[in-house]
Amino acid sequence: MTKEPPHKSREKVKTLLVDLQENICNGLEELDGKGKFIEEEWMRPEGGGGRSRVLKDGLVFEQAGVNFSEVYGKQLPESIISQRPEAKGHEWFATGTSMVLHPKNPFIPTVHLNYRYFEAGPVWWFGGGADLTPFYPYFSDSQHFHQKHFEACNAVNVDLHKVFKPWCDEYFYLKHRGESRGIGGIFYDYQDGSGNIYKGNNKDGNAYEISKEIGKVDLGWENLYSLAKNCGNAFLPAYEPIVRKRMNHPYTNDERAFQLYRRGRYVEFNLVWDRGTIFGLQTNGRTESILMSLPPLARWEYGYKAKANSREELLTKIFTKPQDWINDKELEDYCRQNNILD
Amino acid sequence: MTKEPPHKSREKVKTLLVDLQENICNGLEELDGKGKFIEEEWMRPEGGGGRSRVLKDGLVFEQAGVNFSEVYGKQLPESIISQRPEAKGHEWFATGTSMVLHPKNPFIPTVHLNYRYFEAGPVWWFGGGADLTPFYPYFSDSQHFHQKHFEACNAVNVDLHKVFKPWCDEYFYLKHRGESRGIGGIFYDYQDGSGNIYKGNNKDGNAYEISKEIGKVDLGWENLYSLAKNCGNAFLPAYEPIVRKRMNHPYTNDERAFQLYRRGRYVEFNLVWDRGTIFGLQTNGRTESILMSLPPLARWEYGYKAKANSREELLTKIFTKPQDWINDKELEDYCRQNNILD
Repeated sequence: MTKEPPHKSREKVKTLLVDLQENICNGLEELDGKGKFIEEEWMRPEGGGGRSRVLKDGLVFEQAGVNFSEVYGKQLPESIISQRPEAKGHEWFATGTSMVLHPKNPFIPTVHLNYRYFEAGPVWWFGGGADLTPFYPYFSDSQHFHQKHFEACNAVNVDLHKVFKPWCDEYFYLKHRGESRGIGGIFYDYQDGSGNIYKGNNKDGNAYEISKEIGKVDLGWENLYSLAKNCGNAFLPAYEPIVRKRMNHPYTNDERAFQLYRRGRYVEFNLVWDRGTIFGLQTNGRTESILMSLPPLARWEYGYKAKANSREELLTKIFTKPQDWINDKELEDYCRQNNILD
Repeated sequence: MTKEPPHKSREKVKTLLVDLQENICNGLEELDGKGKFIEEEWMRPEGGGGRSRVLKDGLVFEQAGVNFSEVYGKQLPESIISQRPEAKGHEWFATGTSMVLHPKNPFIPTVHLNYRYFEAGPVWWFGGGADLTPFYPYFSDSQHFHQKHFEACNAVNVDLHKVFKPWCDEYFYLKHRGESRGIGGIFYDYQDGSGNIYKGNNKDGNAYEISKEIGKVDLGWENLYSLAKNCGNAFLPAYEPIVRKRMNHPYTNDERAFQLYRRGRYVEFNLVWDRGTIFGLQTNGRTESILMSLPPLARWEYGYKAKANSREELLTKIFTKPQDWINDKELEDYCRQNNILD
C-alpha cells in the first residue's frame, strides 16, 4: 500500500508541468531564432482539457509540438486498470506534458519528452522520460544526452538510472524492424512509492533483472516529484548543445532524403507500438494533439539498404541498438575510428 | 459444416492469383509507359514464400507494389482462430495477391486490391476486395469504380454486392478521424460456402442488417473462386480509364501538398486499423513486403483545415463518407452543381 499524496498534490504537479511546457517553449524559441509557438486551448467533453503549442517552419525546427493536458474522468480504461487494479471503480485525474521536435537539418536529432502524473482513488503514480533519435551518428551527442539524464536521476537516487535507461531501450523498440527507435534516454512508469521501481512488461529483460538485483528503493511522493522536475529541467541542457553544434552543418539532398526515410520509422513506432498513441486514438482522444508527434514529412522506400561503411549504415548498425553510451570505451574507440565521435 | 474443397484446390487458386499478379503488372507497365516492375522472390523460414514486385518512379506511378504469396504453417494465430474455431489444431495454407498503387499526379486516385484464400483442416475460405482513394473529387470516377465491381459480383450472385459494398465502407474506416479511407469499393472475408455471407465484426452495421434481410446465399467453392476471378479481373477495367482521364491533368505545388497530406491518412489507416498489416508486423511477417503499402512520401500538418468550398473541402466532406455512388441521383446533382461531376 502506498502512502497518500501530500496536500494539493494535483496543483503542485500541474504547476510543475505547466512551467515545464513554458520553459521548454521559451528555450526552443530562443534556439530557433525565428519560429514562434502558436497556442491552442482545448476542452475535453468528458472532463479537463489542455494547451497545445506548435511551432512550424522555424529556422531550426520544421515542427515542434509541446502539449500540456490535465484531464479527469469517472473510470480509467481497462488497459491501465490491468496494470493498476487498485484504481478500479475510482475517479481519476491525469496531467502531463509531452513534446516531439522535428528539426529541419538532418544532423540535428529528433527528440521526445513526456512527464505525467495520475491519481485514482487510493493510488497515484508518476511516469515519464526523454529519448533522442539521431539521423546522423555522433557518439558525443548520444553520450551528452545520456549523461545529463543520468545526473538528473542520480540527484534523487543513484539506483534509478540503472533501471530507467534499459527500460527506455525496451520501450522504444520496433520489433518488426529489429531496431530501437534511436539511442534512448530514460523511461519510467507506474512509480507509486511502493519501492519496486520496474513495472514494465518484459520479465526477461535487462531492466527487470537489474531492478531485482537492486531490490526495493525507498522513494516517496516528494522524491518522485523531484525526479520529474530534475529530468524535465535536464531536457534543455541535454539537447540545446547538440542543436547548437549541428544547426549550421550543411547537408545534401541525399542526407535530407535519409532523414525523411528514418522519420518513417518514427511514424511506424508511434502508430504501431506506442501504447499512449494507440490508446489515445482508440478511445476518442484529441487526434490532432496526439498525432502532433508525427513528422511534417516522411518517406518510405521499399528494400532500402545503406551503402557499406557509410554513416547511414553506421547509424543503423550502432545507433539503433541499445548501447552503454556513458561508459563503453570500446564503443567510443570504434566511433573515433569511424570518424563519428564528435 | 462446409463442403470439402475440390481436387487440387490450392493449385487452382494459386494459379489464379499468380496470373492476377502477372496481368495487373503487365497492365500497369503499359499504362505507365516508363516504369518497370522489379521482382524479388523470398522464402518464409516457417514455410512458403512469395514474389514481390515493385515499380518505382514511373511516369504515372510514384510507387506501385504488387505482391503474391503462398505460405503455410502448423497453427494459425489466435486472431484468426477466434473467427474460425474449426481451424484450431490444423495445419494451414494461405495464398494471396495484394496491391497498392501510389500515383504521382494528385488527380489520380490511390488504389488497393487484395484477394486471398485459406485452407486449415476442415475449413477453407475466400476473402478480398478493392477500394479507391481519390485526392481530388470526381463523381464519375467513383461511380465507374463501383459499377465495375458491382458487375463482377453480380455475375456470380446478385445479392453479394449489397453486402460487400457496405462491408468495405465499414472496414476502411478511420475511427479516430471520423473518416472513411476513400470512396470504398468491395470487401469480403471468411467466405466458406456456409451461406452466411457477412462475417464482419459490426453487428449494428448496414452490411450485417442487409445480410440478415437477404438470408442464406447458396455459394459453393466454385462460385467463390469465380468471384475472386471476376473481381480480380475487374480491377484494370475499373481503374485504367480513371488513370487515362487524369494522368495529364496539370497540378500545382498546393495540390501535390494536399495529396501528401491525405497520404498521411493512408499511413494512419494501415498502421493503426488494418488488421492484416498489424497482424503481419506483430507476428514476424516480411516487413518490407507488408509495408510496401505505405506511400513513398507523406505529410502531416497540425490543425489543417481545407478552405471553405474548395475541392479539398469537398473531398473531405463527400468523398470520405459512405455514399451510394451508383444510384444516388441527389449526390450526382450535388457534384454537378459543384463542378466535380467529371
